[in-house]
Amino acid sequence: MKIVECVPNFSEGKDELVVKKIIQAISSVEGVKILDSEMDANHNRSVITFISTPEAALEAAYRGIKEAAALIDMGKHKGEHPRFGASDVIPFIPVSGVSMDECIEISRKLGEKVGNELGIPVYMYGNSAMREYRKNLEDIRNKNFQLEELTENIQSDHWKPDFGPQKIGSAGASIIGSRDYLIAYNVNLNTNDLEIGKRIAKALRAKDGGLTFVKALAFYLKDRDQVQISMNLTNFNKTPIYRAFELVKLESMRFGISIHESEVIGLIPMEALVETSKYYLQLNGFKSSQILEKKMME
Amino acid sequence: MKIVECVPNFSEGKDELVVKKIIQAISSVEGVKILDSEMDANHNRSVITFISTPEAALEAAYRGIKEAAALIDMGKHKGEHPRFGASDVIPFIPVSGVSMDECIEISRKLGEKVGNELGIPVYMYGNSAMREYRKNLEDIRNKNFQLEELTENIQSDHWKPDFGPQKIGSAGASIIGSRDYLIAYNVNLNTNDLEIGKRIAKALRAKDGGLTFVKALAFYLKDRDQVQISMNLTNFNKTPIYRAFELVKLESMRFGISIHESEVIGLIPMEALVETSKYYLQLNGFKSSQILEKKMME
Repeated sequence: MKIVECVPNFSEGKDELVVKKIIQAISSVEGVKILDSEMDANHNRSVITFISTPEAALEAAYRGIKEAAALIDMGKHKGEHPRFGASDVIPFIPVSGVSMDECIEISRKLGEKVGNELGIPVYMYGNSAMREYRKNLEDIRNKNFQLEELTENIQSDHWKPDFGPQKIGSAGASIIGSRDYLIAYNVNLNTNDLEIGKRIAKALRAKDGGLTFVKALAFYLKDRDQVQISMNLTNFNKTPIYRAFELVKLESMRFGISIHESEVIGLIPMEALVETSKYYLQLNGFKSSQILEKKMME
Repeated sequence: MKIVECVPNFSEGKDELVVKKIIQAISSVEGVKILDSEMDANHNRSVITFISTPEAALEAAYRGIKEAAALIDMGKHKGEHPRFGASDVIPFIPVSGVSMDECIEISRKLGEKVGNELGIPVYMYGNSAMREYRKNLEDIRNKNFQLEELTENIQSDHWKPDFGPQKIGSAGASIIGSRDYLIAYNVNLNTNDLEIGKRIAKALRAKDGGLTFVKALAFYLKDRDQVQISMNLTNFNKTPIYRAFELVKLESMRFGISIHESEVIGLIPMEALVETSKYYLQLNGFKSSQILEKKMME
């Protein structure tokens, strides 16, 4: 079974009824499972996480965006977070049996549909970007460039939307795209020396010469009196969990420090654990189709 | 989602149409997935493997047994394997989210239904045994005790069925029960010395002081020029894969031998790989409900 995750952000974090109606619109598509929804009153936005087949995800995201456009007036919106549209950022993420290309395809189809049918300007980002300079979300929407700035600049070629009209209505603009699954992964060390933790985190992270798809920081955990290496694994296919874990272990050893335990925060695709088992058990010929539960999902 | 596996054996291994009809009867229950079916002409029997929810498995197995009773006449059956009934042995195996107690329950319900509604004598075995001496399959049906011997002895108290009449009809008798999932797991060593392999296999297997739920033999693989430790893991919850793998590694080291790779033959429950990842990554707090695919199956 093909599974994609979609994590749309909506510019409403105070009115529960509005968020509830958007969730209802999304889950009205058969086979959609809402995994999580978080409302943040300060930022006045909500983040909804759902999974489904690619086709269902496209339709569900469209219904969510349509409902948000009907209920949220960006002219009246106030909040801390960069404000851009009633439906702000909508990423599609491959989870199981789906390629990035398929996610790019459905995200662009959604962009086209939102632009044409709802009349909302759409910017494609991430792997779905149609202009090179729109790959990074922060280069489209940031603290210094929000809906007001976009309204002023949308007539320029630089800010011409990938889909939809070159003008702003009450729903603002939307940023639609695709990205890799992000695993939040922490390793807790048998030390309370934060300086050592910082050196280990530095050895791990991409920008300081570590692993390409790892972002790492060190924290002191007061309740445990331990140092934690807190990581984001931004592409678990290319930089698998076990490699990050073993590198933390390796770098810890030079300080005579061992690992207390590690933890996955939130959800994780099955494939990440399959890869871990394959590595440690030297299961070189193993295929995910050998997992019984996969058969039930076919 | 709750998943059980059921592996019924039928006494027909020559007539494809009969086996096809039995498979059709089984898969007529919604949600049943046929994983495998094997016909053996010499033994004149077939083994069908399917998975489903516990309720569906009960109904599917019943329909298979009913169809087999209608199509197979044990009075005319010939074959090498111990012959006992049209539907011979029917084990239920917990795979995911299901306890052994639930498998015992559905197997006994099936036994009762088969006994009462189809008039077939039923013996419960394995974890479902209702008499202590019927725990082992071989103590019920073996080379020296087949359908003919049962027919002679069924009037004795020792051979009184757990369900159904104390007499044999054309469908013979059935043995219904529950057992743990069996993982076929091999580790290939970087040696061609079979004597060393035999010592390692001996160190692994339960009966020689090894791990409780491991059966192990050593083979020489001519095509690879390597020795293989071939194992059956009969309870992967209590004796997990990683422990068997690491013990092979440990015992190999004293002979200066390393592991080339390992392999899982056939299918494996996801939980076995989750446990492997938990061990090696020291993921002590991890729960299977954190796996994204599990959410899709809820």
